[in-house]
Amino acid sequence: MISARNHRAPINERSRPVPQGFTPPYSPTGRSSLVPPPPWHYAGQILSLAFAVDKAAAENFLPTGFGTATGRAVAHCCEWQSTTDGWELLDPAYAQYREFFILLEAMRDGQPALYCPFIYVDQDISMARGWLQGWPKKLGSVWMTRPYDLDHIAAAPRRAGTRLGATLAVKDRRLMEARITLDGSEGARLGFLATPTFGLIASPTIVGQPDPGKPQLARALVENFTAGTFHGGTAELTFLASPRDELADLAPQGPAVASLANVAFSITGAVKADMPE
Amino acid sequence: MISARNHRAPINERSRPVPQGFTPPYSPTGRSSLVPPPPWHYAGQILSLAFAVDKAAAENFLPTGFGTATGRAVAHCCEWQSTTDGWELLDPAYAQYREFFILLEAMRDGQPALYCPFIYVDQDISMARGWLQGWPKKLGSVWMTRPYDLDHIAAAPRRAGTRLGATLAVKDRRLMEARITLDGSEGARLGFLATPTFGLIASPTIVGQPDPGKPQLARALVENFTAGTFHGGTAELTFLASPRDELADLAPQGPAVASLANVAFSITGAVKADMPE
Amino acid sequence: MISARNHRAPINERSRPVPQGFTPPYSPTGRSSLVPPPPWHYAGQILSLAFAVDKAAAENFLPTGFGTATGRAVAHCCEWQSTTDGWELLDPAYAQYREFFILLEAMRDGQPALYCPFIYVDQDISMARGWLQGWPKKLGSVWMTRPYDLDHIAAAPRRAGTRLGATLAVKDRRLMEARITLDGSEGARLGFLATPTFGLIASPTIVGQPDPGKPQLARALVENFTAGTFHGGTAELTFLASPRDELADLAPQGPAVASLANVAFSITGAVKADMPE
Amino acid sequence: MISARNHRAPINERSRPVPQGFTPPYSPTGRSSLVPPPPWHYAGQILSLAFAVDKAAAENFLPTGFGTATGRAVAHCCEWQSTTDGWELLDPAYAQYREFFILLEAMRDGQPALYCPFIYVDQDISMARGWLQGWPKKLGSVWMTRPYDLDHIAAAPRRAGTRLGATLAVKDRRLMEARITLDGSEGARLGFLATPTFGLIASPTIVGQPDPGKPQLARALVENFTAGTFHGGTAELTFLASPRDELADLAPQGPAVASLANVAFSITGAVKADMPE
Repeated sequence: MISARNHRAPINERSRPVPQGFTPPYSPTGRSSLVPPPPWHYAGQILSLAFAVDKAAAENFLPTGFGTATGRAVAHCCEWQSTTDGWELLDPAYAQYREFFILLEAMRDGQPALYCPFIYVDQDISMARGWLQGWPKKLGSVWMTRPYDLDHIAAAPRRAGTRLGATLAVKDRRLMEARITLDGSEGARLGFLATPTFGLIASPTIVGQPDPGKPQLARALVENFTAGTFHGGTAELTFLASPRDELADLAPQGPAVASLANVAFSITGAVKADMPE
Repeated sequence: MISARNHRAPINERSRPVPQGFTPPYSPTGRSSLVPPPPWHYAGQILSLAFAVDKAAAENFLPTGFGTATGRAVAHCCEWQSTTDGWELLDPAYAQYREFFILLEAMRDGQPALYCPFIYVDQDISMARGWLQGWPKKLGSVWMTRPYDLDHIAAAPRRAGTRLGATLAVKDRRLMEARITLDGSEGARLGFLATPTFGLIASPTIVGQPDPGKPQLARALVENFTAGTFHGGTAELTFLASPRDELADLAPQGPAVASLANVAFSITGAVKADMPE
Repeated sequence: MISARNHRAPINERSRPVPQGFTPPYSPTGRSSLVPPPPWHYAGQILSLAFAVDKAAAENFLPTGFGTATGRAVAHCCEWQSTTDGWELLDPAYAQYREFFILLEAMRDGQPALYCPFIYVDQDISMARGWLQGWPKKLGSVWMTRPYDLDHIAAAPRRAGTRLGATLAVKDRRLMEARITLDGSEGARLGFLATPTFGLIASPTIVGQPDPGKPQLARALVENFTAGTFHGGTAELTFLASPRDELADLAPQGPAVASLANVAFSITGAVKADMPE
Repeated sequence: MISARNHRAPINERSRPVPQGFTPPYSPTGRSSLVPPPPWHYAGQILSLAFAVDKAAAENFLPTGFGTATGRAVAHCCEWQSTTDGWELLDPAYAQYREFFILLEAMRDGQPALYCPFIYVDQDISMARGWLQGWPKKLGSVWMTRPYDLDHIAAAPRRAGTRLGATLAVKDRRLMEARITLDGSEGARLGFLATPTFGLIASPTIVGQPDPGKPQLARALVENFTAGTFHGGTAELTFLASPRDELADLAPQGPAVASLANVAFSITGAVKADMPE
């Protein structure tokens, strides 16, 4: 059998090397694997948009027993750079990706908690890492304006009056558009930067009778969090209809509160969370 | 808890809909899921390239106990169109993808069997379906010449003397180049079109101590196979070095035998295969 | 000065090679140029959709003096393979591209003629060749169902009852959706396959005062045309709104007539067409 | 005739609107045009790499009469954001692109001057604007590490010891790899940030006898230049072979001097430059 447990071990003493790797593809050295085990390190720009959502609509996306929807939600647009031991920063096609996701707030054991119904990225490595954490990732195309702190019409510097945009497209359909105006205030820590955030780790199988499995509620372990200044503002946030991706069911009710920052952190693993049947 | 088992059931009688779906993302209707359960139906053009590979090199990629490498291998370049009930053919961004993979031959219980060490596709839906079957899919960019049966220099018609190309790139590095010359002969059924083919279904986890799990050897169930004419030829096949994707360890020794055809089939599920520890 | 005229000549006798090329970039060998001079050879699948358009709307897109809009228009979705002397078919990333364009019919000197207001492709080589012919090309993402003549749900064979789809997206917005039903009839030769087709070759400049130049009406010279069977049908064709690409101004009025075929031809150059001031 | 000169004028008084636009496609409003006239405003991150190149090799890429190659060259990797009046920053798929280019230094009338033999971008708008300025743009895929000023392994902050990477791929082949180490010094203004830079504006035509035209040496007019801190360092820079794009002829001889900065500027037009026949 494959000795995948030795995914970082040197080639063993047996008569031939045993295929190695934390995830497929397995190879004699393990270098070909799509994703190595955590810790995974991230730095990037995150735009957080807090908005009101119809409570019943949000409730319909929550796992049974997760909690009661509060009618609050947060969307995050991100431009990430990630690495294991630093090598990916020297070959940034392996490090960089863009991401958009939505988090729905619920009261859970008397405390606010967040659950992720939709998330999109543009790289396979990120998709696979997300699935291991309970993020329901698909491929999507994300764009977001980058602030450069220069006094120029193209620079979108982080100061009052600057306007920024962000968009998401999935399978060649635009599903989200945001237009943000910074107002010079200090921004809030919103969404997963402030509130415990959960996902469902799935285990579907087609071996024997196809079965979606029993998804496991879990929470990623975040360490080494650091951030720059948070810049506040307001935003118009729009979700557009699609025959497949039902973001528009979670349409923002009214304008959003915006917060923009550079952040960095490490994911070291995940822990199970309880959920009544 | 999520009632994902009812992934195709109408919204149930409870006070609120339960999120549905065979895979994440789950939604009240299940329409947002990345992948529905099989059957999955495929049609497309497949270029098969049979080549000799160093036995010891191939052996190093085989799961322990799978069998003994014969030194034979097959590469497949494919342009697929897939659907569940036909709707994807009306929105082909959901149906079409390109694929490249390698199969290593081993003697297993006295019979030839194939194992897949590397496979690349360009769509998320295909990636997820592959993982459920034990295909170690990553994203890659695949190009292959399309024959049109017209008498014109750009048409590459299926006849003796026509030359075709195929390439693979992963993370902006070219990893495979093939140049095929059709010779007017009838092509052979090669690779997974002729020989039982196995993959390792992985179950890595980062909940608690990161663990690659115990990969399960499995074989997809193929039904409704149909094919057009197979066109034979020869090919130069080259694998190029990469710091991550170790295809070049399986470099072809000498020229390849080529076979080009349109095929269609359905995947209805998968079955476990035994493997000594 | 650059001796670009010698773009195909061997390196000359001077003390050093002179940069060569029909288009930039220029290099000592000319091999780096984006586009060589014609002839350019094409083969591929073309889906033609004839539809009625508001006459006044179409008229507004015609160059003054071109002719009088008839209210007829044709959209073409294409999957091309192009080559100069055959080498691109061995490295198909250089040969293949997808294309969508619209042609507006006008009466011109008592004869029907077509003019192209919008065209989208997904490769730079095609974009540059198009500009040289008067096609107003931008980048876009085009998908179209591929028929394989097999009896299978995923194969979309060319026969009565088969349904196909085609889409266009530009800058992450979907701008066109078509759903075609083949009806078993023989298809018509539509659009540029049947009627003289004109474009405006532009010559904008930013040297000195920015000036769009005086566009030159022209017509490409087509030779060596050959085609397979034309398959007829009907289609729903929809153009979607965009803040930039005004296709929706040319919205189809009612269903479209569809015709699907494999074709091949060569472009050998272009000729000027007269147009009253 | 098309009244493209009125490209920004309101629809005129004639019986119907005249198609408008600085470049194709022309439309009644001019909104569909790929590129409006300058001024074009840019902000972004630029990584400049100064290197030694074989004099004779460089000389072979210079237009006759441009000057004498000095054996110095600069490569620039850029991540840009561009806009006309600000609207593109709200829909950043129209604003952002990545770019890689090479500049060769020559002595011209006793002063150093730069000429661009190769440049690659990933957006059509940028490609068209470049052609108007004499930049020989093709499509390419560019990646470069982004520094975030946070103390974290993934952040690549702008300080001594930080390592960054940059790559270029064209048609699925990697053509450039750079590995930069910042050393805490102040960076120099290199390349087009320091030295007059020229390009050849091409005017190939296929009307009548195909003719590459007589390229016009020109120089873009830059205004409103502003920059943040320049961070110095060193780099390994490698150009890789391709059958089409001859960058490898200009291979760096030894390590490169690196300089990283955020910059912004506006292009307002271009002026012709003289060149002896």
